[in-house]
Amino acid sequence: MPKISKKGILMPESPIRKLAPYAEQAKAQNKEIYFLNIGQPDIPTPKHALDAVKNHDLDILSYSPSSGFDSYKTKLAEYYQKNGIRITKDELIVSTGGSEALMFAMGSVTDPGDEIIIPEPFYANYNGFATASNVTVKAVKSNFEDNFALPAIEKFEEQITSKTKAIVMCNPGNPTGYLYTKEEVQQLADLAIKHDIFIIADEVYREFTYDGAKHHSIMNVEGLENHAIMVDSVSKRYSMCGARIGCIVSRNKELMKTAMKFAQARLSPPTFAQIASEAALDTTNEYFEEVNKEYVSRRDTLIEALSKVEGVKVAKPKGAFYCIAELPVDDAEDFAKWLLSDFDYNGKTVMVAPAAGFYSTPNTGLNQIRIAYVLEEKHILDAVSILEEALKAYKS
Amino acid sequence: MPKISKKGILMPESPIRKLAPYAEQAKAQNKEIYFLNIGQPDIPTPKHALDAVKNHDLDILSYSPSSGFDSYKTKLAEYYQKNGIRITKDELIVSTGGSEALMFAMGSVTDPGDEIIIPEPFYANYNGFATASNVTVKAVKSNFEDNFALPAIEKFEEQITSKTKAIVMCNPGNPTGYLYTKEEVQQLADLAIKHDIFIIADEVYREFTYDGAKHHSIMNVEGLENHAIMVDSVSKRYSMCGARIGCIVSRNKELMKTAMKFAQARLSPPTFAQIASEAALDTTNEYFEEVNKEYVSRRDTLIEALSKVEGVKVAKPKGAFYCIAELPVDDAEDFAKWLLSDFDYNGKTVMVAPAAGFYSTPNTGLNQIRIAYVLEEKHILDAVSILEEALKAYKS
Repeated sequence: MPKISKKGILMPESPIRKLAPYAEQAKAQNKEIYFLNIGQPDIPTPKHALDAVKNHDLDILSYSPSSGFDSYKTKLAEYYQKNGIRITKDELIVSTGGSEALMFAMGSVTDPGDEIIIPEPFYANYNGFATASNVTVKAVKSNFEDNFALPAIEKFEEQITSKTKAIVMCNPGNPTGYLYTKEEVQQLADLAIKHDIFIIADEVYREFTYDGAKHHSIMNVEGLENHAIMVDSVSKRYSMCGARIGCIVSRNKELMKTAMKFAQARLSPPTFAQIASEAALDTTNEYFEEVNKEYVSRRDTLIEALSKVEGVKVAKPKGAFYCIAELPVDDAEDFAKWLLSDFDYNGKTVMVAPAAGFYSTPNTGLNQIRIAYVLEEKHILDAVSILEEALKAYKS
Repeated sequence: MPKISKKGILMPESPIRKLAPYAEQAKAQNKEIYFLNIGQPDIPTPKHALDAVKNHDLDILSYSPSSGFDSYKTKLAEYYQKNGIRITKDELIVSTGGSEALMFAMGSVTDPGDEIIIPEPFYANYNGFATASNVTVKAVKSNFEDNFALPAIEKFEEQITSKTKAIVMCNPGNPTGYLYTKEEVQQLADLAIKHDIFIIADEVYREFTYDGAKHHSIMNVEGLENHAIMVDSVSKRYSMCGARIGCIVSRNKELMKTAMKFAQARLSPPTFAQIASEAALDTTNEYFEEVNKEYVSRRDTLIEALSKVEGVKVAKPKGAFYCIAELPVDDAEDFAKWLLSDFDYNGKTVMVAPAAGFYSTPNTGLNQIRIAYVLEEKHILDAVSILEEALKAYKS
């Protein structure tokens, strides 16, 4: 039998998909499941984006340029400018989802054996991309108690070695919902400049900021032009996860030239999805205001309901559509499995993401879960009451 | 200034795209260019595939499963079965183009420092994917004189070391157009079994075989179940290069489980493109017969015309839509650049791909070019006569 690669063996399974067999089991038992585990919004995709694809007039579905259609890049640069991020179309490459942008960034700045630093808990697939690149993740633990704010910058500096190539940050954060302050972003930037390393900022949730809080893009830190790499995606912004369109943005010419070689090797990003993404840029501010109002309302409903459940604590998010909750259980993964395989309340149960999978330090966050508030409020309320019943039953 | 990775620096530029600035120059001079350099077919995409996307009824453009939509996988397995390749839907994962399938295969079987063996000349992006994976390509030279048939199998065996993890083959071949015989495929298979390594077979041109010659899939070699990995794509088959849909196929369960972890990390292949690809599977045999008739006719026209040009020799392809020609020049890359920047014939010129970029051995194939016969015959004839005039002018 020929051998699988070491990195293939080390590749982590997604902490969310790990529970899939249990969900199958629950479905087989005809249980109704509330999916609080994935970031798949239920918000309708803007109709004009879907219609643009309906109205396509292609005869040949050809390759687009490797960096994306020029018309899309032009309009995308305008979108950033409108949002206060002054970049040109030559400072971005269209990617196949934010995922590919992350891989381009990782490939352009790291070699096998190198290290990247990430505040944990973090988006679990960073681990996958790092493993695929044979790069070691050094985690700096952020804390439930302060809603997962940026840990003391000294904690980052302690982790820096000659092998450190980048700090990866997600702002607003998945899975924490934390929105970094201007000062926090500046602290990270200062550190990157001091040690001459990159900052890779995943800003795919940029529009989802609440309570009047402002998003501070890594692209707007003065003096960071050569160190800042932004990763973006249309997935959450326009509820277009299935498009698979993102982009990598940087003013560092050498970096972009390198990323472009990775882009050329895979030929081009998907054509139909670029058509949809270009049209999506016509989405009005009203759409985002409406969507944000909905998320704020869901968040408040969720947090209020969770806070009333005995033994449950919840960190208050300022952005994205996730929150981390602490449960009165020893192992939230066992509990999450049990919810699917052994529990139901009037034929219904809940699927949540155990948060330990978002930490790279072993045995951390064992009693935490990530909840995505991507359901209507009445479903959120129902889901929380099921969770409450489940916790009672689980104790006994 | 933060440092670019070594692998980023080593990442090759595509030999085709390297000429892009010269093409820009030619366009600026208002020259008309015949593009014989890229494998972008001019054949219309089957209308029912394009219409399926026009008729989509999505409200939310959601993620598909990481391995692709079940309906598409089911129908795709049926397509393979109809084509004599007996695989099930669980033995395939839908990928974002053949490119991603190659990266999944490379990631699943190689670690940094490992080696893969490829008969050269080969599809240039294999170099890119190998570099991205920190894997060394050991090339075995195939020869113009015998139309790039499989080199003696001993030449492959000589290259095998403890670090060799796979042999990569492209059948029918890009850039050679060579179609491997059953015996050649068996020879490679025997070698893979003897040394317990994988064969990664890129079979994206499967339908494009001419003169009654039959395609022999790696998936149909008995006893090779655990060693065979097939990479496929809808790009050329249905003239759908911009879809970015392919797949990785293997009966090796461990391999597929590993590839699936890479697939999960990037979430999902594009949704619209899967809708188009699923509909494309309804394409009739008549379509392929028609297309193949067209390509055979173009190939014959091209080869006859090229053979008449003084000093030009051409290898006769049995598949795909490329051929390699030898020119009476010392450096075909210089000539290709000159064609764009310094030459025109009645305001027209030709863009070709210098073949040296398809060899990994330095200074090989310097007088060769790859021609893609993806233009109508009248344009092919015009292009060849321009090439003829150019060669005359270049000499003096």
